[in-house]
Amino acid sequence: MGADNQQETLDSSWVVGFTDAEGCFYVGINKMPKMSLGWQVLPEFRIVQHERDEELLKQIRDFFGFGDVRKNHGNRKDFRVRGLDNLEQVVEFFEDHQLRTKKQHDFEMFSQVIDMMRHGKHLERNGLDQIAEIVSGMNEQTTPTYLKDSSETVRQATSDRG
Amino acid sequence: MGADNQQETLDSSWVVGFTDAEGCFYVGINKMPKMSLGWQVLPEFRIVQHERDEELLKQIRDFFGFGDVRKNHGNRKDFRVRGLDNLEQVVEFFEDHQLRTKKQHDFEMFSQVIDMMRHGKHLERNGLDQIAEIVSGMNEQTTPTYLKDSSETVRQATSDRG
Repeated sequence: MGADNQQETLDSSWVVGFTDAEGCFYVGINKMPKMSLGWQVLPEFRIVQHERDEELLKQIRDFFGFGDVRKNHGNRKDFRVRGLDNLEQVVEFFEDHQLRTKKQHDFEMFSQVIDMMRHGKHLERNGLDQIAEIVSGMNEQTTPTYLKDSSETVRQATSDRG
Repeated sequence: MGADNQQETLDSSWVVGFTDAEGCFYVGINKMPKMSLGWQVLPEFRIVQHERDEELLKQIRDFFGFGDVRKNHGNRKDFRVRGLDNLEQVVEFFEDHQLRTKKQHDFEMFSQVIDMMRHGKHLERNGLDQIAEIVSGMNEQTTPTYLKDSSETVRQATSDRG
């Protein structure tokens, strides 16, 4: 593939390299009284960039064929994928095209959570506990705010049991 | 190329994607009384990572076939390439495999500087002024400290003329 062609379309390895650096596999566990257990498990895959590279985020969205490009915060935009069906395709992609950084560890935890959700485990107390435990083992260094938030959420989830 | 194979060797597109996110094309202009003009132009290409991914930096070094993996600061390591011969190969690589983010702009400036140095322009007052001007137009967002330092250097270089 020549340089000209590369300018137009992304290829899998580029997406993996970029995700190794900038991708985030995130699982939120949010208090939500309306849910039967009072908690909502909300996994998402996202890539945050300065708004100057919004066009590139749209190319990544087109590469996957789903997801949204939105305002993140300040002058940042993000490409975000939610929804089990789409996230299962994300998982499949990164199973076929393995990450090279230690982010692979987070991906494997993420993949476990998606699989459990596919089997409805997040709707049972035991499953939710297990998911909270998996999430507490995730080590997403690019979003320290998330780390703080999520460990707090996990503590809440744990202390909520009795 | 299967996932197993990918685990062992890096490919060009992955390196481009990772560089789009984490690479830095840097040109230092350092006061150095021993040099004929009193200034040294020191270009380098580098990728900084948490030390947990030192092994990956070594794979990147092996991919290029030159450069060093060293301690950066704190718990960070870097892959660093210096020297015109090696940097010309880096330039060639990213000419053949174009970056997708706006970092491409920095790369083009970097490439100009390398070319000027190859022709000895950094050893003439006019050439040094031009290089300082190019450097001041570089927009490397991953190293704000450098940006501050370099614009100061450029001002010094400019006021040093008379």
